[in-house]
Amino acid sequence: MKIMILGADGYLGWPTAVDFAFKGHELMLVDNYIKRKLMSKYKKKPLTVSPKLDKKTSLLNKMKCKVSYSNIDCSNFPLIKNLINNFKPDAIIHYAELPSAPYSMIGYNESWKTLQNNLQTTLNIVWGIKNLKKNCHIIKLGTMGEYGTPNIDIEEGWIDINHNGRKDKFMYPRQASSLYHTSKIMDTDLLWFYVRMFDLQVTDLMQGPVYGILENEFMETNNLYNTYSYDDIFGTVLNRFIVQAVNNQPLTVYGSGNQIRGYINIKDCLKCIELALENPPKNGNMNIFNQFTEQFSVNQLANRIKKALKKNKIEVTIKKISNPRNEKEKHYYNAKNNNLIKLGLKPTLLTDSEIIKLAKYVIKHKVNIDKSIITPKTKWV
Amino acid sequence: MKIMILGADGYLGWPTAVDFAFKGHELMLVDNYIKRKLMSKYKKKPLTVSPKLDKKTSLLNKMKCKVSYSNIDCSNFPLIKNLINNFKPDAIIHYAELPSAPYSMIGYNESWKTLQNNLQTTLNIVWGIKNLKKNCHIIKLGTMGEYGTPNIDIEEGWIDINHNGRKDKFMYPRQASSLYHTSKIMDTDLLWFYVRMFDLQVTDLMQGPVYGILENEFMETNNLYNTYSYDDIFGTVLNRFIVQAVNNQPLTVYGSGNQIRGYINIKDCLKCIELALENPPKNGNMNIFNQFTEQFSVNQLANRIKKALKKNKIEVTIKKISNPRNEKEKHYYNAKNNNLIKLGLKPTLLTDSEIIKLAKYVIKHKVNIDKSIITPKTKWV
Repeated sequence: MKIMILGADGYLGWPTAVDFAFKGHELMLVDNYIKRKLMSKYKKKPLTVSPKLDKKTSLLNKMKCKVSYSNIDCSNFPLIKNLINNFKPDAIIHYAELPSAPYSMIGYNESWKTLQNNLQTTLNIVWGIKNLKKNCHIIKLGTMGEYGTPNIDIEEGWIDINHNGRKDKFMYPRQASSLYHTSKIMDTDLLWFYVRMFDLQVTDLMQGPVYGILENEFMETNNLYNTYSYDDIFGTVLNRFIVQAVNNQPLTVYGSGNQIRGYINIKDCLKCIELALENPPKNGNMNIFNQFTEQFSVNQLANRIKKALKKNKIEVTIKKISNPRNEKEKHYYNAKNNNLIKLGLKPTLLTDSEIIKLAKYVIKHKVNIDKSIITPKTKWV
Repeated sequence: MKIMILGADGYLGWPTAVDFAFKGHELMLVDNYIKRKLMSKYKKKPLTVSPKLDKKTSLLNKMKCKVSYSNIDCSNFPLIKNLINNFKPDAIIHYAELPSAPYSMIGYNESWKTLQNNLQTTLNIVWGIKNLKKNCHIIKLGTMGEYGTPNIDIEEGWIDINHNGRKDKFMYPRQASSLYHTSKIMDTDLLWFYVRMFDLQVTDLMQGPVYGILENEFMETNNLYNTYSYDDIFGTVLNRFIVQAVNNQPLTVYGSGNQIRGYINIKDCLKCIELALENPPKNGNMNIFNQFTEQFSVNQLANRIKKALKKNKIEVTIKKISNPRNEKEKHYYNAKNNNLIKLGLKPTLLTDSEIIKLAKYVIKHKVNIDKSIITPKTKWV
């Protein structure tokens, strides 16, 4: 298949590119390195980072993979439209969003940049494929954060509502706890609107916090690691905890630690993208899948890591710090995730051995750890 | 009270300004005339139009009203922030949105312009009043179109959902049938998010299609009419029907004409704004009121006009034309509108005499009618 991957330089984009390249797909990788630029602006460095797309693409080409790249801003309509018209993708995997909740809460400029980038890029894809619509499946990475923490079960995208003796099926009502997550609610609305109007095929993947690295011989041989972030702005909680543990720092839990989320290993994330690709909706339909494999609280997560790493003689401590976020710290949480499992996902759970494997990766790169970039500085007020 | 009116040159903005000016409020009127510019670009003219804000403001000042104006683009953050900081409003009435469904469906540029203008302006207001938040009530004009046409009763903003033996209160799930209306769903999400995060006071008024003119001695004496539009892009259905009737053209009904909406007279709209102003929510809360007074189908509307104008010897014909919009033409519709009535709204219903009064206004300006601008040209595909 001919696949465009937008945001192909990122933590998920690059592993997806490698995975699909070796599976024989013809790829167009797109990234304008905005996340690298922002990380540099805020003086955050990832634990590991790979070269840019020019070098990575040429290494893939040496392996006989059919991969090209383009260094354009997907929020620029003429550029992305032109690229789509020339490449004529069968599918577009849309990771090209600013993905940070803390970044989106820093101030006015960051909040508008998040809205502008995420909404304009999504709109550009819609209008860019309008004339190819019969043949182009949009797969957008969404987030479980769109649902927030409602007091009822979280269904997968839709909910049947009975009200005053009548019923209808609705998009599950969403309420997020950061501007970034709110921009993703808007994205979902935007895509669902154009699915109905322009007869598009869209899959929206509501992903929980992702963790881990892709184990891949090609990547290891060539030092083409994931961009593994653990800082307060671009890092995710599980990856950050592993860095803190390896570095003999306490795992810093925001607030009470009773916040429950659904998590997923990056290996499973790639499998989900593949399942989405293989199971497109009909034109005029939108698939929404909840993309996580198990749910636990931040406290449970910290304790699992503590217990697992004890086996490896790493003594982990846990410290609660004031929550910089405005979020419910005690809440009901029961989210469904049957759709992807029905399609064939076999969950990789967060076992002791998975935690130890990840810690070994971090230990290998321990010299890169900068503990000064971990403490949260952005407050939700 | 010190009140800023954003979009003060418009069909609703200007009558609101006159109404509040004579009630003794101190006003800052803001408009960048974007709607005038777009109407000129698409060669659409209103039936009646008033001078710009400089002249209108000076006429109000001669009447001892405390009114200033500023000709800035509300989607420009430094400009609007500065104006807010200097004026220090007690309330901001936010009409500064591109309000046209057909405009938003013309093409890519118009869809992005609608999203950018409407979302950035709303975001700017939020960040502009952040430091004044304890004292500034945002009143945003929303639209009943956010709800779409669900198969259950439409509540006012919120709905209690019982699901799998548990319950919670949610924002009523929304699904619109134009990009413009979708931008208003996003606006609602944006404001509700910041109400929770920044402890703001917001009232969101879900208005149905509005019709009519404000009868006001000051406006009539000085030829300061409403901007009364009847064209295919910026006009609303009822105002357009009256123009067609007066001009001896058939009332053009889009599709089957069974589309039901909730309508409101502009006089009632002004009263609703006043009621919203007098009944602010507490900080951290959002009032959502459905702002319409009666609901009927397009066919019923056309027939009411036909029947009423027959009394005045105007023979009205009705013609169904192909629906340029992608919308349900047969649907359940039962929307609640108790909140504003409880607060004191006494509905002005669409009686024969209201229709005749409006027709007399149109007859007075009949010379301005351009029948070439009425046929819909924008299709929802």
